[in-house]
Amino acid sequence: MTKKIIAFDADDTLWHNEPYFDEAQERFCELFQNYASKQEILQLILTHQVKNLPLYGFGIKAFTLSMIDSALELTNEKISGDGIQKIIDIGRDLLQKPVELLPNVEEVLEKLKGKYKLVVATKGDLKDQHRKLHDSGIGPYFHHIEVMSDKKDIDYQKMLQRLEINPADFTMIGNSLKSDVLPVLNIGGHGIHIPYHTTWEYEKIDFEITHENFKALENINQVVDLF
Amino acid sequence: MTKKIIAFDADDTLWHNEPYFDEAQERFCELFQNYASKQEILQLILTHQVKNLPLYGFGIKAFTLSMIDSALELTNEKISGDGIQKIIDIGRDLLQKPVELLPNVEEVLEKLKGKYKLVVATKGDLKDQHRKLHDSGIGPYFHHIEVMSDKKDIDYQKMLQRLEINPADFTMIGNSLKSDVLPVLNIGGHGIHIPYHTTWEYEKIDFEITHENFKALENINQVVDLF
Repeated sequence: MTKKIIAFDADDTLWHNEPYFDEAQERFCELFQNYASKQEILQLILTHQVKNLPLYGFGIKAFTLSMIDSALELTNEKISGDGIQKIIDIGRDLLQKPVELLPNVEEVLEKLKGKYKLVVATKGDLKDQHRKLHDSGIGPYFHHIEVMSDKKDIDYQKMLQRLEINPADFTMIGNSLKSDVLPVLNIGGHGIHIPYHTTWEYEKIDFEITHENFKALENINQVVDLF
Repeated sequence: MTKKIIAFDADDTLWHNEPYFDEAQERFCELFQNYASKQEILQLILTHQVKNLPLYGFGIKAFTLSMIDSALELTNEKISGDGIQKIIDIGRDLLQKPVELLPNVEEVLEKLKGKYKLVVATKGDLKDQHRKLHDSGIGPYFHHIEVMSDKKDIDYQKMLQRLEINPADFTMIGNSLKSDVLPVLNIGGHGIHIPYHTTWEYEKIDFEITHENFKALENINQVVDLF
């Protein structure tokens, strides 16, 4: 029988991520500050990101291409090659950021290991997420990493079929109510929310969740008390 | 006990792919025909693709970004925004190509299904490969799709650990000796090669394989005789 599975989201659950994206967007806004306000530029990037999701999916390469789309629109296609190079460099820098674990992550994994099958379940660039798990040093705690093309009900359903486990034996832990909790509750699994201090606009929801399989924690330490 | 697993490469094993990339590169060469010969441009793209592999991995988004790198170099960063847009469009068109199954693929899957656990094991863009499997109509024959960040020994080892199967019970079928056969033989699995009429330069090897776990077939029909 397959052990019960606990899956952890990666970005902003195991390690810091969103601040790197914020910093990247700051750099982009500075490049094009003569074309629009920071707020307008951030909105434009988000618009292109969401528009591009069906084709590009999530991750830094998609983000880079969405920044290029935004720059083409901002400059009415008058952007220079040098400007394009600077955008590509922003993307490449993101792909080489150090991986900084969040507090207490390793201690929690240490306590859970052996008792459950631990998995990383994340969106993003395939190569990049594998790289980050490797660089994080916590790879050995996990049975494997699932890089998901999206985190909707159907994506979790497919993952559980692949893992050959019942939803009731599956718990997902993450910082996004929209991606880590709601779809998992929808398909009969358990969802644990641990907030991160900043959330990508796309991941925000504007309602409360009450569900018997849902737990809202304040920090990852509290996970240990639940298992 | 886990059933024996047969994994199929996707691009140019289950469906046509390389001709779409060739066509995309033709379009790129035409855009920049005043800067260099076709042969020089193709070499330049390949150079950027290989250079970018450690950061970007495989797939169409990586290819698009490598085309942009190539264009920046070819034009000495003098490329126009319109030129960048045309490159992005080449990439976007690639992501929306119809999926054309190779001959006899479905018949072979029909004969194998139920007797083995059938898996797709492919490199490329996560989202794009999921899309292609869906659009192909042959998704239901497979237990799941593994989109791998690379196809080296270590990547197959990780995949087999994840699938909890011994290498001896694993067979990989594909058109690339370098990516689908050699690493699988190296880790103790079985490799079957089915050539496609054209091969990406990066996937070529210049030696013969002789190994007791290796079979070279002429077409996918012959797979059925082996199982």
